[in-house]
Amino acid sequence: PFAKEREERERGTMAMAEPSRTSEARRDAVFGRWVIFSPARSRRPTDLKSHGSANPSPGPGDGAPKPSCPFCHGRESECAPEIFRVPAPEASSPWRIRVIENLFPALRRDAEPPAPEEGEKPVGAGECSVRGFGFHDVVIETPRHEVRLWDLDAEGVGDVLLAYARRVQQLAEHPAVKYVQVFKNHGASAGASMAHSHSQMIGTPFVPPSVTSRLNCMKEVFERSGKCSLCEIQSKDILVSETHNFSAIVPFAASYPFETWIIPRQHSSYFHEIDQDKVLDLGSLLRSVLQKLCKQLNDPPFNYMIHGAPFGLSSSCLPYTHWFLQIVPQLSVTGGFEMGSGCYINPVFPEDAAKILREVDCS
Amino acid sequence: PFAKEREERERGTMAMAEPSRTSEARRDAVFGRWVIFSPARSRRPTDLKSHGSANPSPGPGDGAPKPSCPFCHGRESECAPEIFRVPAPEASSPWRIRVIENLFPALRRDAEPPAPEEGEKPVGAGECSVRGFGFHDVVIETPRHEVRLWDLDAEGVGDVLLAYARRVQQLAEHPAVKYVQVFKNHGASAGASMAHSHSQMIGTPFVPPSVTSRLNCMKEVFERSGKCSLCEIQSKDILVSETHNFSAIVPFAASYPFETWIIPRQHSSYFHEIDQDKVLDLGSLLRSVLQKLCKQLNDPPFNYMIHGAPFGLSSSCLPYTHWFLQIVPQLSVTGGFEMGSGCYINPVFPEDAAKILREVDCS
Ligand SMILES: Nc1ncnc2c1ncn2[C@@H]1O[C@H](COP(=O)(O)OP(=O)(O)O[C@H]2O[C@H](CO)[C@@H](O)[C@H](O)[C@H]2O)[C@@H](O)[C@H]1O
Ligand SMILES: Nc1ncnc2c1ncn2[C@@H]1O[C@H](COP(=O)(O)OP(=O)(O)O[C@H]2O[C@H](CO)[C@@H](O)[C@H](O)[C@H]2O)[C@@H](O)[C@H]1O
Repeated sequence: PFAKEREERERGTMAMAEPSRTSEARRDAVFGRWVIFSPARSRRPTDLKSHGSANPSPGPGDGAPKPSCPFCHGRESECAPEIFRVPAPEASSPWRIRVIENLFPALRRDAEPPAPEEGEKPVGAGECSVRGFGFHDVVIETPRHEVRLWDLDAEGVGDVLLAYARRVQQLAEHPAVKYVQVFKNHGASAGASMAHSHSQMIGTPFVPPSVTSRLNCMKEVFERSGKCSLCEIQSKDILVSETHNFSAIVPFAASYPFETWIIPRQHSSYFHEIDQDKVLDLGSLLRSVLQKLCKQLNDPPFNYMIHGAPFGLSSSCLPYTHWFLQIVPQLSVTGGFEMGSGCYINPVFPEDAAKILREVDCS
Repeated sequence: PFAKEREERERGTMAMAEPSRTSEARRDAVFGRWVIFSPARSRRPTDLKSHGSANPSPGPGDGAPKPSCPFCHGRESECAPEIFRVPAPEASSPWRIRVIENLFPALRRDAEPPAPEEGEKPVGAGECSVRGFGFHDVVIETPRHEVRLWDLDAEGVGDVLLAYARRVQQLAEHPAVKYVQVFKNHGASAGASMAHSHSQMIGTPFVPPSVTSRLNCMKEVFERSGKCSLCEIQSKDILVSETHNFSAIVPFAASYPFETWIIPRQHSSYFHEIDQDKVLDLGSLLRSVLQKLCKQLNDPPFNYMIHGAPFGLSSSCLPYTHWFLQIVPQLSVTGGFEMGSGCYINPVFPEDAAKILREVDCS
């Protein structure tokens, strides 16, 4: 309904972020990826209606369950089995957060895990396949259909993060699980199929490709400089907001406009080792960054992902692995250039995006 | 307008491709990426309308230029400068193909190229930036607004490919250009902003991230097995179609449903070295694969990309670099899992997709 309005707002935001700069290509020290910054690109015309707009996101309502939504309270029996819940103090719902199995899992917990000695079955030269063993869980962040994650208070957001950490901890104990990807899809053009506020995690029997290349890149930086890429970030120009324990920045080589990273200020390899104090701090910062993005970009579709280290890493790798949370608003569709080259074109310089987000007032 | 119809067709296609298989994870020998095959995923419900549908693609018309489209014949003066054209034999338009500069380039040909000795300017630990030098061109594939690439005859498609090759050849001669990514966006949800049939290429002063990781993966396979990953592909179950010089297959670890690769059967590192005979053969195969995808998937948005070798590669790398053309129909939006992990979830097994495409009759 607000598609047009949002489009204009986004265009305005892009334009604001464009103080007569020329193109520049940057490579970051975390993923080792090249990104092209090109303010001129935001002015190109179109005769095709892009998606991205019209995000049928829930808004404030009467709190009643939506008749067809299995994630609403009262409809628990329509969901795949519960793993654990965080009980609610009030009487309106018996739970505040539920961690459940995904009913349509990408990987199956009931498949035979690949035996360590069996490993990967080679098919052709270098090709290999393994059985589809793994875990695929859903975190229902609230019993109420209309509540968005950032409508909760800081403690509420912190509790969702704590539920992630607790479940990741459980999965880390399974000998065949090598990595857990925690992620959230919000809005149809960010891939979400369910509107009710939720996140997911997938535990894989292999280390996923981007994790391997991130670790390789950070290792190379460490071997050359003796430093952790994330500890070394100079956040002055690119700072969005910070708390005692965390910084929110727009990274130096952000692949997407207004991409934001929340990074623990103290070196730490594993998200799931976070403690109660820090999780509240993180909850408050995540909440405020999501509010800023929502306000500035008119409730855009977005994804966030927690990037950590694979399990059972040798201790020599710990000095250069540092977990962080990456938030990516989906403001445009990427095309064949990005898909083919892995190099993104971003019309908004990180310093400009950070300045805009820094100045958004969400109090 | 056909959103619903297409959706049902796609759902049907997904279902057809699902003969009681269970999940499996595969890693390919070209990009070294893990992909999860999970037929069950295609059955998950949604209460959010996905994009992907409603592709306002041009259809047969009267051949008149569209009043506002700068890519139509007669409106050449509204375009950025022409680089070269392929003249038309008929009188209806003075040209058949135009290669022009992109009016809103991501990289600028008039920027100072980075001096070889200057190289990359380090910013922080491992971060670096270079000036936005490079080339960004558009290939207008037809003077007529309603004609799609696969509406041309085999020779017409071959001529478009030849125009790519000729332009890549020119860019390869520039000492500061390290790679040229040729790509096509068709349809809004594949990123296209212009409906008139066209493709693009971007010449970069660095080797893009996916090219580096592809070369590293193919090198590793070569060092272990003495073989080129692409020469070694066993195409029996995954073959879509073949000609004297090329095979079209659905790759063993396709990241996307119905992703198709067209591969020269004879080992060859550089696309732009293709000769006149082979280009006609390639034109006929590309045309037929696009027709099959269009017919089976109801004119889906898609991208294609040509993957070659960086310029000036040492001759020791040639035995394991083999160019190919990757076609990716955009049938769904990817989410946070893929974005975070680089691992894709594909509901359709390659063998099933290949069988379906093999059987589509486009004569
Ligand atoms: N009754 C029930 N009980 C338990 N679980 C239920 C359920 N009903 C539905 N579900 C599950 O709930 C999940 C909702 O997830 P999202 O809306 O975040 O996106 P989805 O996983 O569908 O796909 C997006 O994210 C994935 C991963 O990034 C991408 O592969 C994909 O393309 C993109 O659309 C689905 O995975 C679904 O299987
Ligand atoms: N009069 C004129 N003369 C010359 N050129 C003109 C012109 N008018 C428009 N153009 C150019 O024509 C091109 C048309 O390209 P496409 O439709 O394939 O997608 P676009 O590049 O916009 O973006 C898609 O592809 C890129 C690269 O993959 C992604 O970054 C992006 O997100 C995605 O939407 C544009 O790049 C535009 O700058």
